Amino acid sequence: MNIQGSTRQQTSAAVWNWRDGASGWYRDEVVVEEPLEIRVNDRALSVTMRTPGRDEELAAGFLLAERVVSGERDIVSMARGCSGRAGSNVINVALAPGVHLDLEHLTRHVVANSSCGLCGSATIDAAARHFPSVRSNARFAASWIASLPDRMADAQVTFQRTGGLHAAALFDERGDMLVLREDIGRHNAVDKVIGHALVKRWLPLSRHVLVVSGRTSFEIMQKALAANIPVVAAVSAPSSLAIAFAQRSGQTLVGFVRGDRVNVYTHRRRINCGEGGR
Amino acid sequence: MNIQGSTRQQTSAAVWNWRDGASGWYRDEVVVEEPLEIRVNDRALSVTMRTPGRDEELAAGFLLAERVVSGERDIVSMARGCSGRAGSNVINVALAPGVHLDLEHLTRHVVANSSCGLCGSATIDAAARHFPSVRSNARFAASWIASLPDRMADAQVTFQRTGGLHAAALFDERGDMLVLREDIGRHNAVDKVIGHALVKRWLPLSRHVLVVSGRTSFEIMQKALAANIPVVAAVSAPSSLAIAFAQRSGQTLVGFVRGDRVNVYTHRRRINCGEGGR
Repeated sequence: MNIQGSTRQQTSAAVWNWRDGASGWYRDEVVVEEPLEIRVNDRALSVTMRTPGRDEELAAGFLLAERVVSGERDIVSMARGCSGRAGSNVINVALAPGVHLDLEHLTRHVVANSSCGLCGSATIDAAARHFPSVRSNARFAASWIASLPDRMADAQVTFQRTGGLHAAALFDERGDMLVLREDIGRHNAVDKVIGHALVKRWLPLSRHVLVVSGRTSFEIMQKALAANIPVVAAVSAPSSLAIAFAQRSGQTLVGFVRGDRVNVYTHRRRINCGEGGR
Repeated sequence: MNIQGSTRQQTSAAVWNWRDGASGWYRDEVVVEEPLEIRVNDRALSVTMRTPGRDEELAAGFLLAERVVSGERDIVSMARGCSGRAGSNVINVALAPGVHLDLEHLTRHVVANSSCGLCGSATIDAAARHFPSVRSNARFAASWIASLPDRMADAQVTFQRTGGLHAAALFDERGDMLVLREDIGRHNAVDKVIGHALVKRWLPLSRHVLVVSGRTSFEIMQKALAANIPVVAAVSAPSSLAIAFAQRSGQTLVGFVRGDRVNVYTHRRRINCGEGGR
């Protein structure tokens, strides 16, 4: 079996940091998120958002868990791109003769409609075609944003009992927490918050902040944009693609929101330094 | 729009706790994980592993992000089950007349081969048919298991710089860390570790421990089973379905592994109290 090389895992981003009233710009390291399309015998099976590097291992492990292969012997080669074209985010696995690909037994597979040469910016372009940029002139105080995760955590009943849940919550500009949802899946918690708002006919959420308990991925930003949420504030770090997406969509992306501090990665105009102006 | 009720978010599990040499049994609360199939006009679009409750909101939020609906008006009703049969893990969304379902534009959708009435035990049964139970007589000291996350964290280069990554690592019974992988996706990190082992022809991993940085879901246990890994040790909590799966597959599932303590949820026979016998 022949395998090829890998790419970078991290990049840097400009960050506006606010801490206890003091603020400034610096550059921060962020983790790279890019789509990877896994193909078998030139047929697309899956697209996963991953950190580049060791993609051959990712494909091999995925195919083992999906029972497409049972050992190294079942794989003849793994190569970048498809049908002779380059593409660092496509990996094509050629199975050994006699190894049967049974699509019916996959837990799930994507319809093969993605183009060869998939990349982060193409992913953003596709999403941007689907949803207009966020429209909102709302502004929020950095000190208030910094307080939101603690308020959300205080209300997380199930997490306190099990320690096993992600959370998402929606705050309005008056400072009220409108809805909190917990779920074992990060994206599910966000879907439930936004679904609640949809059912309640609150859309568009032009003067609201979405708070999430973990990291921020491309998909979280996309879900927020679908509801026109101008500010996403996360307890932990954003990915490179979340930042790039927010930059283009006009969303304010805030990370490392912890009591006395926030990092603002995009569209800082919506964040005030002062105590008031929430 | 009419919507129906929801179900429990947590359950309890028997846990064997070891801490600084002392040990004992107690019951612990764990978060419930179950599959949810989202159907639109009786056609299956997606299966997601979620915590039950607020499933109508989950479906509505998912469909908004997938651009199937743009507001509450596009939904006529949401009901459990399909084609007149009950099923608490299936939700069927009826779209308003004139709302077009464009399958080509979904980011992904599942092949509609799952049966109506999908549930956690059916999910486990299906996975169990695919992989035999784990075969291993390896045993490990609780004190050694407790030390593994710190050893993994020390080696996590990218996390230290970005704070944005999940990690998975494979240890052998001699105590060596064989491979560590970091990724923005938890499942990807596990796929890379197991894929590395596959490429290196190390399978089956009958005398090894898989360490993961976060929580343990059904899918993590399934991936470990595909490689015949007898012990999975996680820094955080397991889900109900991860425990049920491990119970059936013969895997030892360890959670809340933090320096001086471990919680063992299934097949405790592989964990020694003593310092030796690793």
